[in-house]
Amino acid sequence: MTATPLPGGRLAAEIKAQVAALAEDWRRSGRQAVLAVVVATADESTLWYVRSLVAAADKTGIDCRLVDLGATATEPEIARHLDDLSADPQVHGILLQTPLPPGIAAARLVERIVPSKDVDGANPSSLGRLLVGQQAFAPATARAVVELLDYHQIPLAGRHMAVVGRSAVVGKPLLHLLLHRDATVTICHSASKPLARFTRPADIVAVAVGRPGLITADHIAPDTVVVDVGTNVAEDGRLVGDVDPDTVAPVAAGLTPVPGGVGSVTTALLLLHTLDAARASFARDAVAIS
Amino acid sequence: MTATPLPGGRLAAEIKAQVAALAEDWRRSGRQAVLAVVVATADESTLWYVRSLVAAADKTGIDCRLVDLGATATEPEIARHLDDLSADPQVHGILLQTPLPPGIAAARLVERIVPSKDVDGANPSSLGRLLVGQQAFAPATARAVVELLDYHQIPLAGRHMAVVGRSAVVGKPLLHLLLHRDATVTICHSASKPLARFTRPADIVAVAVGRPGLITADHIAPDTVVVDVGTNVAEDGRLVGDVDPDTVAPVAAGLTPVPGGVGSVTTALLLLHTLDAARASFARDAVAIS
Repeated sequence: MTATPLPGGRLAAEIKAQVAALAEDWRRSGRQAVLAVVVATADESTLWYVRSLVAAADKTGIDCRLVDLGATATEPEIARHLDDLSADPQVHGILLQTPLPPGIAAARLVERIVPSKDVDGANPSSLGRLLVGQQAFAPATARAVVELLDYHQIPLAGRHMAVVGRSAVVGKPLLHLLLHRDATVTICHSASKPLARFTRPADIVAVAVGRPGLITADHIAPDTVVVDVGTNVAEDGRLVGDVDPDTVAPVAAGLTPVPGGVGSVTTALLLLHTLDAARASFARDAVAIS
Repeated sequence: MTATPLPGGRLAAEIKAQVAALAEDWRRSGRQAVLAVVVATADESTLWYVRSLVAAADKTGIDCRLVDLGATATEPEIARHLDDLSADPQVHGILLQTPLPPGIAAARLVERIVPSKDVDGANPSSLGRLLVGQQAFAPATARAVVELLDYHQIPLAGRHMAVVGRSAVVGKPLLHLLLHRDATVTICHSASKPLARFTRPADIVAVAVGRPGLITADHIAPDTVVVDVGTNVAEDGRLVGDVDPDTVAPVAAGLTPVPGGVGSVTTALLLLHTLDAARASFARDAVAIS
């Protein structure tokens, strides 16, 4: 048996088409959804990703404004830009791209992104609202895992899901999204030993650690569905996940590819969240005017 | 073998003694820590609990102010009181006691408790900060579970912990406290079937559901430590937990009693949190004056 591939390309295209249709409607009536991306790094792979985001936004009719503060930006400088963007009625979504210059923690800065524009769910307030089940933008990567499983009709309610990785960007918010969907969730991390003890009994394993080849055939059972959230640049420049597809694909029931899996859906969801933020903003404007 | 009892009384007394010593020091220099408890119910067992909290605060030298709005209080009325208390420099801790009058959701109201006074970690902002690992008050019951295990020298790092119950008040915040302590956590709920599939493999099982007798000998392995967070009033008026002690105690390695377990520590921690909030407030005053 070979794992059924669970690609994200078509789902991403469908989400983008939905975004593009509404953005086009808005444009005809003079309204424009705007996403601001704050960047403060010279890291080439980050800049490559940001340029691809700008291009994707452009294709869907969302104005993606790159606020490039350079690799020598200071914390007060970044903070001021986030405050300004939070207050700017023309901007609907704000993304603070990591990495930041050495010594500057994203954790403090993301609190300056007003929750209504926090399209990547980075502000602890957004995460707290997600935890209690109130309206909030989920981190796009975490939501992409759930959307991709839904798209491939893999049920979550009553299933046992192991999440490997406890970051505030993926693992923890994913855990809460899965709880809202009635999955039983085990969250594993570097102190979970042996890791296979926790991943083998699970129906679905989602891995978001950032270590190539972490998950091998030993970690999964024959009927496991595996979602690879890792995006690592290998020595030869290829993009690879946290799963070793050579050993896992022959055993697992399903496997999301890297690239072309969760990552492609993530970008599409960032644009969808920006659209949702713009829609809410336009609705508020309409109420204020009437 | 019979489970080692894991009572909370001594730990609660130690915490209260620590609170009392500092409160007494402050009183000599004219400073007083104040906890405000907002109540809007005629429910007898709730009023009984609140009176016991006031008495416990009194004994430790914390001024616990009961703001009793009555069972007919409206949402705007409760909201206004929470706003006033959040702004009042004389008040250091705020607790919104549930249940509230029919149709009034605590979820909306707790957002009005400023995080620096949110001594029971009810505001989603507090929960979000807890999730990302920033300074915040944890819900006292969730913290009580961790403190009680620490007190009885039951290690958490690298252990597998099953949390039964996914409330925003206990289960979910407890999960994050355990993750910060390097436990691997499985969170179970009403859709986790059969429940024993998830609780039997765990080293420690914490139950916070509110259903007497939910956990029996079938749910645990012989070396399991069981923490009973349930507080249910039985038909005969006795306080009982979620664990059936008659079948579990002969099998488990350890078991927290109800009453006299987690609950007693919870009250002590609420007072400790109020003290911590007052300390931070006094420190801010000192900075403002100097």
